[in-house]
Amino acid sequence: MTAIQLYDTTLRDGMQGEGMSLSAEEKLRVAHRLDALGVELIEAGFPSSNPKELELFELLSRETFAHAQIAAFGMTRRRDARAEDDAALRVLVDSFAPVCTIVGKTWSLHLEKVVKVDRDENLRMIEESVAFLVAEGKRVVYDAEHCFDGWHADRDYALRCLRAAAEAGAETVVPCDTNGAHLPGQIATAVADITAHLADTGVRIGIHCHDDAGVGVANSLAAVEAGATHVQGTMNGYGERCGNANLVSIVPNLQLKLGHDCIAPAQLATLTETAHYLDELLNRTPNADQPYIGKNAFAHKGGMHVAGVMADATTFEHMDPALVGNRRELLISELSGKGTVAARAEEAGIALDDAAARRVIERVKELEHRGYHYEAADGSFELLLRKESGEYEQLFTLESWRVIVEQRADGKVETEATIKIWVDGERYVRTGEGNGPVHALDNALRAVLSDTHPHLDDTGLVNFKVRILDETKGTEAVTRVLLDASDGHDVWGSIGVSENVIAASWDALVDSLEYATQAGRETAAPADAATERASS
Amino acid sequence: MTAIQLYDTTLRDGMQGEGMSLSAEEKLRVAHRLDALGVELIEAGFPSSNPKELELFELLSRETFAHAQIAAFGMTRRRDARAEDDAALRVLVDSFAPVCTIVGKTWSLHLEKVVKVDRDENLRMIEESVAFLVAEGKRVVYDAEHCFDGWHADRDYALRCLRAAAEAGAETVVPCDTNGAHLPGQIATAVADITAHLADTGVRIGIHCHDDAGVGVANSLAAVEAGATHVQGTMNGYGERCGNANLVSIVPNLQLKLGHDCIAPAQLATLTETAHYLDELLNRTPNADQPYIGKNAFAHKGGMHVAGVMADATTFEHMDPALVGNRRELLISELSGKGTVAARAEEAGIALDDAAARRVIERVKELEHRGYHYEAADGSFELLLRKESGEYEQLFTLESWRVIVEQRADGKVETEATIKIWVDGERYVRTGEGNGPVHALDNALRAVLSDTHPHLDDTGLVNFKVRILDETKGTEAVTRVLLDASDGHDVWGSIGVSENVIAASWDALVDSLEYATQAGRETAAPADAATERASS
Repeated sequence: MTAIQLYDTTLRDGMQGEGMSLSAEEKLRVAHRLDALGVELIEAGFPSSNPKELELFELLSRETFAHAQIAAFGMTRRRDARAEDDAALRVLVDSFAPVCTIVGKTWSLHLEKVVKVDRDENLRMIEESVAFLVAEGKRVVYDAEHCFDGWHADRDYALRCLRAAAEAGAETVVPCDTNGAHLPGQIATAVADITAHLADTGVRIGIHCHDDAGVGVANSLAAVEAGATHVQGTMNGYGERCGNANLVSIVPNLQLKLGHDCIAPAQLATLTETAHYLDELLNRTPNADQPYIGKNAFAHKGGMHVAGVMADATTFEHMDPALVGNRRELLISELSGKGTVAARAEEAGIALDDAAARRVIERVKELEHRGYHYEAADGSFELLLRKESGEYEQLFTLESWRVIVEQRADGKVETEATIKIWVDGERYVRTGEGNGPVHALDNALRAVLSDTHPHLDDTGLVNFKVRILDETKGTEAVTRVLLDASDGHDVWGSIGVSENVIAASWDALVDSLEYATQAGRETAAPADAATERASS
Repeated sequence: MTAIQLYDTTLRDGMQGEGMSLSAEEKLRVAHRLDALGVELIEAGFPSSNPKELELFELLSRETFAHAQIAAFGMTRRRDARAEDDAALRVLVDSFAPVCTIVGKTWSLHLEKVVKVDRDENLRMIEESVAFLVAEGKRVVYDAEHCFDGWHADRDYALRCLRAAAEAGAETVVPCDTNGAHLPGQIATAVADITAHLADTGVRIGIHCHDDAGVGVANSLAAVEAGATHVQGTMNGYGERCGNANLVSIVPNLQLKLGHDCIAPAQLATLTETAHYLDELLNRTPNADQPYIGKNAFAHKGGMHVAGVMADATTFEHMDPALVGNRRELLISELSGKGTVAARAEEAGIALDDAAARRVIERVKELEHRGYHYEAADGSFELLLRKESGEYEQLFTLESWRVIVEQRADGKVETEATIKIWVDGERYVRTGEGNGPVHALDNALRAVLSDTHPHLDDTGLVNFKVRILDETKGTEAVTRVLLDASDGHDVWGSIGVSENVIAASWDALVDSLEYATQAGRETAAPADAATERASS
């Protein structure tokens, strides 16, 4: 049982994937989730590259993490210059990050064809860059780019590159399979050789793989079996081309199947939730078939499977899904999750008896079948709990709504929304304008409700995501809208599902406002809840 | 260099995956595609299970295949009965299929808890079932279910089960990792032991893996390296839970990286097309990040990558994508250089001079700053190239559009869109209805344009994604809409960005239709492609 250091590069290498995009504030939320999961090192990005990254490091420097240390990413100094004169290395030094990860060349082909640096100068670039950062008080991780190609092409030179980093004071050297070219046997052989060769330096050996051959996870495991004790990867295998090695598969494999020590069992039990949270944040469809955390990962169909699983789960399950926070999916009924519902009700301070909990489970099942998805819609879920427990207060009764969006002949786009609703026996007709349909509907509702619910003045929508659920059907398919709203302390998610994107948005909007105005909430906004949120 | 026998079970085990469904006639087409790819054995299903499967075997019996043999699937006889009296084995014998694959138990846990058969009777079930089929002139593949669990729990008994099949005349025995529990090291150890133990029988050793630990491909490779020469898997890794071992990754790994002999190079070059064909037939979204055959598998972004690849492809590509019928993709982003733009123009057959290429880069930079993102919008990018090269044909001139969505007092949601546009000096006013605003606008536009552009009848929207770009601003922030459309061969992405989700959708929709109707595109749709589509 070896302790394995987890190094997550979702926020840097993962962001190279097609269509990956997160704001600095969203990246902060990812960092907190990774910290809660027990990741030891979080590579946050390139502080030197652009203002958005600088903003992220500024935000990160003010945060406190329970386990994780932040790593800033950069590269070895430019050729024929002094490390201390290299502006990019200087930015790393100036960054608050206690760990600096720098990447450098190992493969002669790249030296000749891409960067046009001679082999000795490359060794000096590695050595002096690492030494400079170490002298400035940084812990240094050295990423050896294309190391396996380099090792196969010229083992001696590749080992000299790694040794240069180790002897200059790097804490960890990480052979990288940058192009994802290699298979587990090749990785194992090279890592065993590297580990033996560098044993005298005391440096930690890492591994960084990609999934181009469909074996990124297996390559990472092979490296650990050959001596690596630091594993780099991304959540859900995000990354360019076929993605980086997927930590969401690597961690349970290392911990549950190979007996290594990565994160605490209670942290491992949040793996499914964390992985899905990342997908939602990135507006990516979670892969239902994803190992360990996918919706289908522990699904059983067919009578014999189900009977076998009921008799003894080990007959048809390779492990207990609860260990990674997933659950068995029996395509014939049976309620798993009464405990979860009860726990969620208690959290929200809602008294829910057994019969009501069962009704909630039935309702969730029915709604999820229609495309609802409560993982990212805690506000809507709480309303559902309230409806079944009898603690629900309806904000208004709807008569009708109408949205008109037009681009006029002068090119100007105008939006107006008219609502007809009843509150306390009184009928209200209001029209709101806005930059878009949700904004206009929101304004129209607030025009009626703000007087009786002044708390709404403090709340606002902060995010809006739309996805087609059965994408093969195009615009006729079901649309799912997720809204996030905030009152400055608390953030809650709500959901709407409809063929019509505006109708789905309306449902999510109403849930969002109703959540904000349930009993206790308007007066409550307690100080410690705000603190909770800020650090989660 | 060993000859590896490929055994595809897409039509049997693959069909256990969630939402998998094919008609008998479609399965026939799959079998022909697999045959063309060079698969040696195609497991077509359970001939005994239902009329649809019987119909499939009836259809298959009349077909001629170039390489492939069809395997019928079944199981060992029931306990305490004679093999020749077993109705299901009888159906296998009566089937035209020259190969019969039968599955049986190896793991005592299953004998005790699931099927309640004693260990000696299980050995007789294996032996007598295999012997019966062999006596009836069948080639027999014996699938040893849960074999790795069995081997770990009681090696001796597992080996006796396999030996029973081998000595009864099975051509191949296949240890199966049915629950997907195992890692490559464990698979390698067991397969090496099994291979050595059965060497005297001359039986061929196979492997059948699942992807529950994310290492199904690596497990299959490990088994081959330990002595297996028959590999079972499914196309694109279809299958229940996390899927079966993915032949689409296994084959190029075996052939291009390990030097084994699976299929001819010309067949390997059809891998991408075949894999995508299967996805289309099954109505599944191809995984853009899929190893070897995904759209992103050889995608490059960023100046240094692109420059490196142009100088020498081996610097940043682990293999030549053409070997598997894929191609390099240069992703367009604000980091792209003139080389990338010129390469994309050439691909699209657009003559773009240097000055125009520079204007394109400037325009992309400016638009990406406003929230556009061309990586996932190749259709919009091609229009941008055309606009700068002068090869752009405008579809219409807009006067105005208006969308009305309302939920009426009776609860019904209605959507209508009215457009006022000019085509060839003529003014058209049309109203379309739809399930949502995009659908209604699309219908209104088609009402004008379909007559002059009949090709549009073959095109339709297949996906729709919306994201807020700066989420801190909520509904007042900029909205990015990505649309995917398809004409059955080609899929193109288009993009719209606006404060207003409907206006952004409109822009993306217009790009999508304009892309479809640019010169050359409408006449291109070749007749045989149309036939293909009509029958799919």
